[in-house]
Amino acid sequence: MQNISENDFKILFNGTITSVPEFYASATHCGIKKSNKDDICVIYTPLNTVSSAVFTTNKFSAAPVEVCKEQLKHSRDIKAIIVNSGIANACTGKQGYDNAFKTIEIASKCLNVSQSNILVSSTGVIGKNLPMEKVASGIDFCSNNLKKDGGHAAAGAILTTDKYEKEIAVKIGDENSNFFIGGIAKGSGMIEPNMATMLCFVTTNVAISPELLDDLLKESVMESFNSITIDGCQSTNDMVVIQANGQSRIEIKKNSTYFLKFKKALDYVLKFLAKQIVKDGEGATKMININVRNAKTKLDAKNIGLKVANSNLFKTAIFGEDLNWGRITAAMGSSDLHFIPEKVDIYLFDVAIVKNGLEFLYDEKLVEDFMKKDEIDINIDLKYGDCHASIMTTDLSYEYVKINSKYRT
Amino acid sequence: MQNISENDFKILFNGTITSVPEFYASATHCGIKKSNKDDICVIYTPLNTVSSAVFTTNKFSAAPVEVCKEQLKHSRDIKAIIVNSGIANACTGKQGYDNAFKTIEIASKCLNVSQSNILVSSTGVIGKNLPMEKVASGIDFCSNNLKKDGGHAAAGAILTTDKYEKEIAVKIGDENSNFFIGGIAKGSGMIEPNMATMLCFVTTNVAISPELLDDLLKESVMESFNSITIDGCQSTNDMVVIQANGQSRIEIKKNSTYFLKFKKALDYVLKFLAKQIVKDGEGATKMININVRNAKTKLDAKNIGLKVANSNLFKTAIFGEDLNWGRITAAMGSSDLHFIPEKVDIYLFDVAIVKNGLEFLYDEKLVEDFMKKDEIDINIDLKYGDCHASIMTTDLSYEYVKINSKYRT
Repeated sequence: MQNISENDFKILFNGTITSVPEFYASATHCGIKKSNKDDICVIYTPLNTVSSAVFTTNKFSAAPVEVCKEQLKHSRDIKAIIVNSGIANACTGKQGYDNAFKTIEIASKCLNVSQSNILVSSTGVIGKNLPMEKVASGIDFCSNNLKKDGGHAAAGAILTTDKYEKEIAVKIGDENSNFFIGGIAKGSGMIEPNMATMLCFVTTNVAISPELLDDLLKESVMESFNSITIDGCQSTNDMVVIQANGQSRIEIKKNSTYFLKFKKALDYVLKFLAKQIVKDGEGATKMININVRNAKTKLDAKNIGLKVANSNLFKTAIFGEDLNWGRITAAMGSSDLHFIPEKVDIYLFDVAIVKNGLEFLYDEKLVEDFMKKDEIDINIDLKYGDCHASIMTTDLSYEYVKINSKYRT
Repeated sequence: MQNISENDFKILFNGTITSVPEFYASATHCGIKKSNKDDICVIYTPLNTVSSAVFTTNKFSAAPVEVCKEQLKHSRDIKAIIVNSGIANACTGKQGYDNAFKTIEIASKCLNVSQSNILVSSTGVIGKNLPMEKVASGIDFCSNNLKKDGGHAAAGAILTTDKYEKEIAVKIGDENSNFFIGGIAKGSGMIEPNMATMLCFVTTNVAISPELLDDLLKESVMESFNSITIDGCQSTNDMVVIQANGQSRIEIKKNSTYFLKFKKALDYVLKFLAKQIVKDGEGATKMININVRNAKTKLDAKNIGLKVANSNLFKTAIFGEDLNWGRITAAMGSSDLHFIPEKVDIYLFDVAIVKNGLEFLYDEKLVEDFMKKDEIDINIDLKYGDCHASIMTTDLSYEYVKINSKYRT
């Protein structure tokens, strides 16, 4: 992660989405989940917003994803987001769309907000329909219990099998002039069948144009959530939403005073949440950073990193604390990307393992010690261009198989 | 697997590559492997051949792969193939190329065959150099011990961590006019680090043009070895070689009497060996056939099948005998391929699970029983075209993680 100086921003203690002025949230258990854990929440601001979102590209995208896309075409002023966990409302056909719209209708009445200013989001089991009566009672409760410190509860209510809440808030600027960015996220914990979704909700109190917010969110997602992989599987429900309510009266424009600071802080918030998701990855015992340097294009760098990150052979080797560098080169080689094998250098942290495509004489004891670390850095230098990318992933453990097979012992 | 009538061909009892007239083989332990298992073999015919080969597309392709490509450019008359196991001679730079050529030089002298008529093949650890003195003694021994029944020993010598030999021979035609096809293969067993290679050697005694043999081999590989996947990882050393020594004096030409029978038999031999490789896949407890029907193109059908076959979530679910069809749709959806989610039907064997993208009411007890089988058929109907493809794969088990992590218990 990049170095952050105090001048750039300050990370708030116990920060979350409601650490941002004029954002409120609440959560409850309405009965979608069999457990008594919270399964619905509302994120709300009374102010007009400029909002933006990025969605899954999965062809079987869920009803709420399709409905949100539709909503954002008509209005970028999103005041409320209703999120449920337990049921994904994916592969549910017309009934699913109807239920997603019905959720908006209910929330509109409860919150006294126009239907066009509301989004919906779901995560959970695929192929099941939402129990709309329970959803209605949940929204009713949440609407009447919105709190200034409700962000943490919301961070809990969007989880499925994640082990802990993922949340952060940062403050940018000084005492006289400042603004905030807050975020919560859930990862791809899947103890129950078919749960596999990445959700992220970001709040900020700057003023910004829809176009610039779109650009900044896209770029930031590319470097964060689109640069992590647990198992190469993509969900039907993934979404990242940002709401900017303008409360600070600080306007972010390209090349304005705060532009770079806002961008840096947004990148930090999303990268932080992405890293939390990886750390909480299913059965993960180690976090792996794959840094690909000097590729011809950024996309090449990223795709080569993903090839390695998604290699089961590589991931199991890291789990076994065995540096099988042949599995790294084999994964890299099985791509159509631009590089010359005879030029490739590979480092474990800063220890050269491969130089110009050949094994480099390295200190085996040193490598053995490095492989025991909880966080492993693999640095690949292609010496073929000047573009870089980093991918975060995890190892592949017995626990991953256990979680995902529901194996009966 | 397709139905084969006795009219088409006969599968020989204990058939192997040397069941084909005028093919000889021998194997020995020369010391490349630490165990006392055979690690080198020679496959030989004294007759002139027309030979063809298909190689890995991995960018880090091994020295023997590059050398074979070079050899086949100059001559298609391959009389001898030297195969070693234990060391892959991959990522070995100039020394690796020199050693591969040196192997040919040694074999040329021992067998009294021109260097241009010899191929080399290796499988084993990446990044290590071949011990050339041991290789030389091995070739010397094999050359002096070529046997008419040496095929089985060769099938053993090419293995790394496979659990058993993969071999077959078929006879086509009647008593008066007949010819043979034999084959041996190894799969991707990888208890030792970096062993991950698919090798296949096929012999036949037909006469055929290099162009037609190229076409038939490519087509057949596409339907067999290129339609299986254990873990989506592609090796640096993969190769399939066929030698046709013309001994039968039966000439295979497009539209000649035996053309279709030869093609069918070749397809059968390669599919049989491919299936053996899948069955012997690392830690496999179940074999899975994914049949994708009615796609726009054959490539689409194949790639959609591969998307599902390579989904860790899907594979672990099958291991847990849990039919999580949401993982099938999620895997299919995470592709750029052509299909309409709302049209997709999914069957477990012939039980409809999903109809038009929605869950179909199915007999849960029946599905539970089907999921206990050793071989699982998933049939996906896209209703979008008329092209089909089948992918064979395995589940993902604890054993896979154990084998590939060298986990110390």
